[in-house]
Amino acid sequence: MESTLKVLASGTVISPPGFLAGATESGVKSQGGLDLAVLYSKKPCVAAGVFTTNAIKSAPVLLSQKHVQGKKAQAIVVNSGCANASTGAAGLADAEEMANMVAKNFGMSCNDVLVASTGVIGMPLPMERIRDGINKIVLTEDGGHELAQAMMTTDTFAKEIAVFVDANPEGFTIGGVAKGAGMIHPNMATMLCFLTTDASVKTDFLQSALKKAVDTSFNMVTIDGDTSPSDTVVILANGLAKNEPISEHNGEVFQRALTEVCLYLAKCVARDGEGGTKLMKVTMEGALNDDEARMAARTVASSALVKSAIHGNDPNWGRIVAAVGRSGVKVSESKLDVYLNGVCVMKHGIPVIFDKPKLSASLASKEVFIKVELNLDRGKATAWGCDLSEEYVTINSAYTT
Amino acid sequence: MESTLKVLASGTVISPPGFLAGATESGVKSQGGLDLAVLYSKKPCVAAGVFTTNAIKSAPVLLSQKHVQGKKAQAIVVNSGCANASTGAAGLADAEEMANMVAKNFGMSCNDVLVASTGVIGMPLPMERIRDGINKIVLTEDGGHELAQAMMTTDTFAKEIAVFVDANPEGFTIGGVAKGAGMIHPNMATMLCFLTTDASVKTDFLQSALKKAVDTSFNMVTIDGDTSPSDTVVILANGLAKNEPISEHNGEVFQRALTEVCLYLAKCVARDGEGGTKLMKVTMEGALNDDEARMAARTVASSALVKSAIHGNDPNWGRIVAAVGRSGVKVSESKLDVYLNGVCVMKHGIPVIFDKPKLSASLASKEVFIKVELNLDRGKATAWGCDLSEEYVTINSAYTT
Repeated sequence: MESTLKVLASGTVISPPGFLAGATESGVKSQGGLDLAVLYSKKPCVAAGVFTTNAIKSAPVLLSQKHVQGKKAQAIVVNSGCANASTGAAGLADAEEMANMVAKNFGMSCNDVLVASTGVIGMPLPMERIRDGINKIVLTEDGGHELAQAMMTTDTFAKEIAVFVDANPEGFTIGGVAKGAGMIHPNMATMLCFLTTDASVKTDFLQSALKKAVDTSFNMVTIDGDTSPSDTVVILANGLAKNEPISEHNGEVFQRALTEVCLYLAKCVARDGEGGTKLMKVTMEGALNDDEARMAARTVASSALVKSAIHGNDPNWGRIVAAVGRSGVKVSESKLDVYLNGVCVMKHGIPVIFDKPKLSASLASKEVFIKVELNLDRGKATAWGCDLSEEYVTINSAYTT
Repeated sequence: MESTLKVLASGTVISPPGFLAGATESGVKSQGGLDLAVLYSKKPCVAAGVFTTNAIKSAPVLLSQKHVQGKKAQAIVVNSGCANASTGAAGLADAEEMANMVAKNFGMSCNDVLVASTGVIGMPLPMERIRDGINKIVLTEDGGHELAQAMMTTDTFAKEIAVFVDANPEGFTIGGVAKGAGMIHPNMATMLCFLTTDASVKTDFLQSALKKAVDTSFNMVTIDGDTSPSDTVVILANGLAKNEPISEHNGEVFQRALTEVCLYLAKCVARDGEGGTKLMKVTMEGALNDDEARMAARTVASSALVKSAIHGNDPNWGRIVAAVGRSGVKVSESKLDVYLNGVCVMKHGIPVIFDKPKLSASLASKEVFIKVELNLDRGKATAWGCDLSEEYVTINSAYTT
């Protein structure tokens, strides 16, 4: 099956046909601005979701997990400013009320509404504002970007994309939006991501394709090692494209496109890491297997010392080696090769003499690339993160005060 | 067996009878000052050690692990400024030469000399300076504090203590010195700690007592989640106290005193965490078992978000709950109680209304106490850490440049 993938100009999560969105300022987000939105499909969708692995799950996650078990959905309601997490039974009732209101206002079963909230943990949702806000929302065909803005907390830019897959005989579109800048760590590293498509996709394949896409994208992003109780990635497929239903046997093109979309959004999240000034890409090769490569890459990408060194353009590669060493994977020091922005700094476990001022200057770029060759077997993986700046601490030392 | 434990004024690692020390400025530490020292016992000692769990081990760790296997030692040579880690076979030869020189200069077998180095990873030891330095070292009975200073890198104060245990019929002394302020995380969280005693202690018991003391002290300290390839804790017991040899059956008093000494030094390390402005104590109670309590306590103490909030005196307890939730231990949210500086902020999983300005003011103190009750069973543990400040990033963003 031939196909080409085209990124749509100004694409949003509602670029696929049949999706609408609307957003409003409810007043929940203390800094003001859009903070409440609804994503809606004209036609009921096949749905799949991946949620936080944190043992403490927010009320919206608990509710959405229940609703997505039915493998169908038609709308998502999302708010920022308050995560409705650690809020007990009252929090669950609030999440249910949000779903019920959206179901009533836009005409569907409340079981087909997913709920997502992001923001401060342990604070009750101000339901008066949420109720007024939901009643104000108007769905339109160009509300995608406003929905992206309404999801933002400490994010500095909206993260959205849409791609058209020119598959033969029927093309389809995939759209996506994500938010997340802090409390970002595998497993399930986005905070929130909503994906849409007009492709017709079989239920079971949609879930497995989503899981696979998330594993190589959002689950390979780390900002601060803290996993949120709110992490949610869901996909809605409304089938308007009239393609032959996609399943395991003909799913390759869809899988590749979905993974690309997730990867793009995951890298946006890494690039927007709280206080981060550059994107850090960590590739691990020659590990015993892919799982070990993933573990080692994520450990390096989340090391406070590596992240601080990268922030200061300091080619202090010993910290990379120390992080690989503590990651729990099999390592043989005498086989290790380490590269910083393409420059070999350690070969077969021995320091290599390099031009330090020159390498330091190259680390001052917007993207830094760390590569480690374990030279044991064929496992490989790539993780993304950002540098650790003074700004991260400033942002996070007075988040609720 | 009755006993009292007395902290000695101006006690150092050589307060126990029969120990000497000497230090010098070799020029290895870029910021200058004492950076090379020898700790020596007049009488050969029973020795035990606990070393880094990092798969990448420094040359001094590899050598000292080998030497301590003989269960005896008489001296330790230590330098700061260069960790002699990730330096290959040449690094191992350098560590061996350090041991050989000390053995020759002070008259013992080189197998009885332990070596410890701390500082930058991946840089060869400047052996000319080390050789000249070792030859300059003079052992004295009041060189303990200078040895403590010679071990410091980013440490802002020397960490040392000595206690006299007035055991019946023969009292004994335990001394200790530690260094460490960054790359601090279980397992084996000190970077370096040397312990001495004039007590007569049986070989096997010494090892098990050390392991036990380290598990509740250094292994419960976390500063930045990065485990160093150099971590070393060793104890030398020279037996000059002429007590009945201590073993499992009569070891309770010794164990308690040794644990106290380790705990004191571990808390010094946490208090001196790079850029840290306050000590953070995290107690976990009611876990399924002690191991789960340890895991949860360490996860909270090492959460970048919790540490940032504590730095800003922000009672943002949701982050504590989120950290417990991702720690991998059994948690039932509806049973959780959380206390911040003694104030209950969550009870049975429900947020408790509290006086925020007052609690924020109380968090501005030099010590902050987080307590979480899981209310599942009787497992408990305490971990120590420090807050995360902008200063941590500043210190670590240009360590080698």
